[in-house]
Parts: sequence; C-alpha cells; structure tokens
Amino acid sequence: MNEVIRMLKKRVFQANLALPKEQLVKLTWGNASAINRELGIVVIKPSGVPYSKMTEEQMVVTDLQGEILEKASLKPSSDLPTHLVLYQEFKEIGGIVHTHSKNAVKWAQAARDIPVYGTTHGDTFYGDIPCTRQLTKAEVNAEYEKETGNLIVATIQERALNPMAIPGIITQGHGPFTWASSVEKAVENSIVLDEIAEMAMGTEQINPQAARLTQYLLDKHYYRKHGEQAYYGQK
Amino acid sequence: MNEVIRMLKKRVFQANLALPKEQLVKLTWGNASAINRELGIVVIKPSGVPYSKMTEEQMVVTDLQGEILEKASLKPSSDLPTHLVLYQEFKEIGGIVHTHSKNAVKWAQAARDIPVYGTTHGDTFYGDIPCTRQLTKAEVNAEYEKETGNLIVATIQERALNPMAIPGIITQGHGPFTWASSVEKAVENSIVLDEIAEMAMGTEQINPQAARLTQYLLDKHYYRKHGEQAYYGQK
Amino acid sequence: MNEVIRMLKKRVFQANLALPKEQLVKLTWGNASAINRELGIVVIKPSGVPYSKMTEEQMVVTDLQGEILEKASLKPSSDLPTHLVLYQEFKEIGGIVHTHSKNAVKWAQAARDIPVYGTTHGDTFYGDIPCTRQLTKAEVNAEYEKETGNLIVATIQERALNPMAIPGIITQGHGPFTWASSVEKAVENSIVLDEIAEMAMGTEQINPQAARLTQYLLDKHYYRKHGEQAYYGQK
Amino acid sequence: MNEVIRMLKKRVFQANLALPKEQLVKLTWGNASAINRELGIVVIKPSGVPYSKMTEEQMVVTDLQGEILEKASLKPSSDLPTHLVLYQEFKEIGGIVHTHSKNAVKWAQAARDIPVYGTTHGDTFYGDIPCTRQLTKAEVNAEYEKETGNLIVATIQERALNPMAIPGIITQGHGPFTWASSVEKAVENSIVLDEIAEMAMGTEQINPQAARLTQYLLDKHYYRKHGEQAYYGQK
Repeated sequence: MNEVIRMLKKRVFQANLALPKEQLVKLTWGNASAINRELGIVVIKPSGVPYSKMTEEQMVVTDLQGEILEKASLKPSSDLPTHLVLYQEFKEIGGIVHTHSKNAVKWAQAARDIPVYGTTHGDTFYGDIPCTRQLTKAEVNAEYEKETGNLIVATIQERALNPMAIPGIITQGHGPFTWASSVEKAVENSIVLDEIAEMAMGTEQINPQAARLTQYLLDKHYYRKHGEQAYYGQK
Repeated sequence: MNEVIRMLKKRVFQANLALPKEQLVKLTWGNASAINRELGIVVIKPSGVPYSKMTEEQMVVTDLQGEILEKASLKPSSDLPTHLVLYQEFKEIGGIVHTHSKNAVKWAQAARDIPVYGTTHGDTFYGDIPCTRQLTKAEVNAEYEKETGNLIVATIQERALNPMAIPGIITQGHGPFTWASSVEKAVENSIVLDEIAEMAMGTEQINPQAARLTQYLLDKHYYRKHGEQAYYGQK
Repeated sequence: MNEVIRMLKKRVFQANLALPKEQLVKLTWGNASAINRELGIVVIKPSGVPYSKMTEEQMVVTDLQGEILEKASLKPSSDLPTHLVLYQEFKEIGGIVHTHSKNAVKWAQAARDIPVYGTTHGDTFYGDIPCTRQLTKAEVNAEYEKETGNLIVATIQERALNPMAIPGIITQGHGPFTWASSVEKAVENSIVLDEIAEMAMGTEQINPQAARLTQYLLDKHYYRKHGEQAYYGQK
Repeated sequence: MNEVIRMLKKRVFQANLALPKEQLVKLTWGNASAINRELGIVVIKPSGVPYSKMTEEQMVVTDLQGEILEKASLKPSSDLPTHLVLYQEFKEIGGIVHTHSKNAVKWAQAARDIPVYGTTHGDTFYGDIPCTRQLTKAEVNAEYEKETGNLIVATIQERALNPMAIPGIITQGHGPFTWASSVEKAVENSIVLDEIAEMAMGTEQINPQAARLTQYLLDKHYYRKHGEQAYYGQK
C-alpha cells in the first residue's frame, strides 16, 4: 500500500505542477487531486504552498471524509471538501482539478454557461459547460467549500447531465472545476476548458449572433473520440 | 524509395512538431501531411499521439486512397480523408496542415470569412479567407472527414478561387486547413492565418466600419511576393 | 547595519527582477522598493537602468526624506517621492511596486475603478480597486511624483479604505501601484492586480450586466485568507 | 572604414534579431536599418531571409540612393526605399524599424490614429501616433516603397510634428514604422508602439468615452524623459 500511495502522490504532484506550466494558475492558486477507490484514499495539494517549492512528499493523503492519514502532514488545500463531495457523488471520476484560469474565470464572473460553438469544445465537452447559480449566504456561511461541491453536483443533476460527458463546470463568481477518470485527464480538461472559453468569447465578439454547433456535428465529434464507436487515437 | 519515404517522414514529423512550438495546437490537436506525387504516397501524423512522445518512425504512410503502406503502422490521423480529397483535387499542393489555432477557430465558429484588412493578410492570401457553409446532417453522418474535404474543394471552386492564391480556408464550426507547395510552407500559412485572424478581430473592434485593403494595394503586395514579377526575397 | 542593508538591497533587487520575468514591465519601466522602519531607510531601483544590466549593488539607499545615504550612488527611481509618501502615511507597509502592466493600465487610462467581479479578486483585494481622480495642473507642475503619492493616500482615506485590505490602486492615465507588508508580497499583489484587471475586462465583454461578487462571498474569500480566522495556507 | 561598417552590420543584425525575440515579427516579416551619416552608408536586413539563418555578414550595405556597396551582397529588404526617404528627410534619425506587430497593425488596418491615453504612451510619443492616409493607386503602381516613405514624411510635416518627438507612425492598411537616433532606440520605440496600441484598444473597450491624457500631464511625462530638463535615468 505504501508504494501505491507513493505513486499516487507522485501523479498528483506532477498534475499540480502542470497547472502553472500550462499557464492555468498563478502564485499558489489551483489544486489537483486523485482518488484510489479501492483504498478509499484521496491525495491533494497542500494549501498555499508555492509550486516552485512544493515536493512530492508534501502531497496530503486523506480518506473520503477528509481525515488526514499521515502524521506530520501539511494542511490540505482548503478546497478539499469540494473535491470530496465530487468523489462521493461522481463514482466514475478518478481526478479533479480546480484553477483560476483566466478565460474560464471570465465566464464564471459573467455568470454565463459557455456555449458549445465548435468542435474543439464538442471533442471534450458534450454540450454547453454549465455555470452554477450563486451560492446563498447561508450556504457560504455554513460550509462553503462543501456547499460548492453540493452545488456542482446539483447543477449537473438538475440539468440531467452525465458528468463523464460534461467533465467540468464553472462556479459563479469563482472559477472552473474539471474532473475525469484520472487526474492527468482532468488536467487536460482544464486546458481544454480555458481554451474553449477564450474561443467562445472571441466567437461572440466576431459574430454576436453566432450559432451553436449543430447537434449532429456535436454527436459526430464527441462520439468520434468517446464511447464504443470512437475511432480517434490509437485503439 | 525507402530513403525518399524516410525523408518525407522526417519532414512531416518536423512539420507536426512545429505546430505546438508555434502555439497553434494544444494536446494532440492538429495534423500535418505531405505528398510525394511521383510515388503516389502520403505521409501524415498518427492519430491521437502526444507531440512530446511522437517519433519520426511513427508517421503513417498511405497511398492516395488511404491504404496504409507499412506493416505495424499506427492508425493515421482521423482527418486523413480530408487531406486525401485536397491532394486529389488541388494538383499543385504538396503539404496540408490542420489546426485548432484559437484565432482562426473564433472566425470558423462565428461562421464568417476573414476579410482582407491589410497587407499582412495580402502578402499570403490574395483576398478574403473563405469560411465554408455548414455540413449537412447527411454529409456528417455519411463520411464526415471526406465530406469536409469535398466541401473545402467546392467552396474554393464555387468562389472561383485559385487554391494556390488562397492557400487556406476555415471550416464552419471547426477550424482552419492550410496547404501549399510543401508541408513547410503549409505550416507557415497556418501561422499567418492565425495571426491575421487575430488582427482582423482587433481591426473590427477598433473600427467597426473598417474597410478592406484596396484591390490595387492587395495586387501590389501579393504580386510583390508571388508570381513572375515577384521581387521580395532572394532571387 | 551594513549586513541589514545588503540583505534589503538583495531583496529589492530580486523584487525588481521579478517584474519583467512576470511580464509586468517592459524596457526600464516599473520599480520596486522596500523599507526598514527601524533604521529609517528605503531601498529602491535606480532610475532608467535596464533590468538585464542591473546589479544588486546598484539599488539606491535613501532615508525617508529621500536623501541618498551611500556615496557614489546612482540616481533613484524618479518615482521615489511617491513611494516615500506611501511609506510615511501607510505605517504597516514594508514594500511598494509600481508597474505599467498592460491590463491595469487599460483601466487606469479608462479612468474606472476595477469592480470586484470574483473571488480571484476578493482573495487579495477586499473590494473594488480604486482609480484616482486626475491630478490637477498645479499638482503636476509643482511636485508631480510627491503629489501622486498624496493623491493615492487621499483616495484611500476618502473612501475610508484600509490600505492593507486594498493593497493597491490605479492612478488615472498612468498605472498601478501596489504595496504590502513586504516587497515580495507587493510583487504578488502586482501580479494579482494585472490578472484581475484582465479578468474584469473580459467579464464585462461576455456580460455587460455582470454583477459584483456578493458581499458575503467577498467576506468569505477575503477572510479565508486574511485575519485571525484565516484557514488558507500553512498556519 | 571596414571596421566601422562591420560594427554597423553587427548592430543592425542584432536589432533585427531583437524583433522576433520581442515577438514583434513572425517568419521573415519586419526589418531594421541604421545609417552612418559621415560615410553616407545605410545597413539593412536582406530580403526574405529567415531570422534563424541570418548572419551578421548578410546585412546589406548601400548608399543613400540604395546602391549596393558590397560585391556578392544579398538583395536588401524590399522596404529599403522607404527607409532611404526617411533618412533623407529626417536628418536626426540614425535607425529605422518596420514590423507587422499585431497590435499596431490592428490600428493601421482600422485606419485610426492611436490616441495618447496615458503616460506609457506620453513617455515616448509626444501625442497621438498618426495613421497615414491610404496611398493612391498611382502612388502604389509607381514606386510603392518610395511613396510609402514620402507619405510618412508628408504626414509628419502636414501635422507639423517633430519626428524626434513622434518617433513612429502607422501606415494605413499596412503597419508601423519607428525611428530614433539609433537603431537600438528604434527597436525600443517599436516595442513601445505595439504595447500602447494594445493598451489603447483595451482602454476604449473598458470606457468608450475615455479621454486623452491632459496636455499638462503629457508635457510632464514627456519632458521628464526628454530634452534639457529631463530627470529620468542616469545623468
């Protein structure tokens, strides 16, 4: 088990390092985590540690209730409760990434869903990327980070979305969360989300009446890459 | 012949690597190919392989019908059928590049031609860069990638354009394809296309009534670099 | 004392070098300073020296009246009088940074406060970032740099703001000044200020009716990171 | 004299290399030149040579009439006639830079002067940066590059501007030319011009009614850095 945890810490460490490298976060913003469902453990970035000084060993190991499992551990990311809710509710996901990437944040602050304007979007997100409603004062003052997770789950469910087909969301006034079967894939989804957020903004600037991708082209592109009929990539 | 193929694979490999380096693609997006018309072979990037792990040997060799010519080959880019149609119809081209470069994609998603607002555009593209119509449901569901190629060819032909004078297009809701006498030149055309897409968007922002370049200045700049009277460059 | 000054020069030197590295300044624009309040000395970048040729030793040491304390010193940044006023009036600050970072400058030139549209902003700035009024002709022609400092202080005071909670400002037609308990933190505040300036511009583009962050979410985020109840970061 | 020419070639070579490094040009776009007025020689970039393969020796040496002075020389930049007119008419300049830097081009294509919205602009350009009128068909078809130079000179003169105080211009539908006492300073002016072009666009986006910098603050900033009363920089 120690070796399994060590490997998971290594992967989470590298996923976190990818965030500033891909210019998705500045300073200590952002966090990535992964789960091992057999062992019931989650590994997440420590809170507020500069990326340039972070080490693999500093990754924080908790159980699904957020209890820290290693002595002498640093404090986990303050967003841990959000991650835990998502792991509990979205049974298929293996990794989560939260950033303040600037283009996704612009849409979150504008309180708008990101419309699916093209195939770059449709290759990864099967439809508009939802923006949550605003958290209420009661929710914020109670358990803010946990309620953020609850709101994400509720938003996905109310819209009857499959979280594996819409593997990310923007939380109003805050920013993006993405997830995937693995933390590495969740990082990729963060990259895609920020890129298509910028593309969508430019699309509306060039043509304020821009139309969404047709459903049949969305189907084509999404299922070219996902599901049993996929034919993109190597086997 | 083996040496010829090896050299073509090398060139296609390097052209593909140029795409992330020039910030025209992220992740595994984009693909470049080249043709040797004497041998009747096309070399293209394999599908979905990360640029950081791609090797020269992995470039896929096919004939003009898309039949793979080497044993143990990886699968070619899923966009191969688009490339093949272009090679068949545009007899003078030697290389093709497809990207999801963000500024070109914005115009593709906005479903607008990119107007020729200046000499930066006119030095490479002799007029507006067309945006195709949308593919029909029947076209998408039949042979999507091949129909994309057919639509590109039809768009160039309906507008009575010379594909060597307008060496690129944007496909509606999708993104840019560029071509040229060589794959290296096609990469350059991708760089130019994205740059002028950004310039055109800013031009309209600064002046919503911006006018196109006059025909005589377009002629001057284009023919300063192209054709028998060209005097730009060495010899 | 010599060792204390040497260390302060080193820190100020490194803070100045961080500005071009973080793409907050071009050419010789921008300046960072720090104060040692026990010794009553201020260390600041020399005027107009290229960052690539600047040395630690060249940092200029003055007292709080701006008198140069080392023989053979270079001339201090022409903005020194602005820094001195801020050090005199804001007793808790230990470092100041001035840049012409492009997104913050856009708001300064637009003569608008930067609205607090999201938590990225609220994590560091507890409310809108003020834009000063324009300096009068008399102020400019008298002691321009000193009057800039006076106007910054007056703006913070008239709005009844705590300079430690709003650790930065934009001066109309000019650009941003940030401050903090240390010069390193002041650099971070410059990074944040430019990033949220860009985010705010995009937010308004996507939704011209975008609403400010609610007060309760601003309170939550700001006090999650600041003050006695803070729980972000390691102890 | 050979040593003087060698040094000038070295400086012009380095100035040209600075253009892609500062992200002001792509591919083979752009050119920088310098003049030695005592010797009556101009050194300029060769036409169409990739920056990555360019050598110091390849810089082209001509007289003020554009006659090439070295055997086995490459062809000079096709924009040489524009440079020559400027050297002949603006007696104080020692270097010229032409780029297609994207933000300056946006204004050139939008056919608008760049308004002096702030001190970043006023520190280098003492007022709006002019956009020329469009060249006539006759001008383009006669001696295009020379007429471009004539139009730049006429624009500066008709507006009664001092070319040393407005050390740059944008040519309509084309792009920026900057000049200065030295080619190194002309490169700096190109950097500044593109930066303030971007700032001005953002300023108008944030506040469509944005006002120009007041004359007295423009005077203050410009003369803080230029002329006998300058007190910015060392000495």
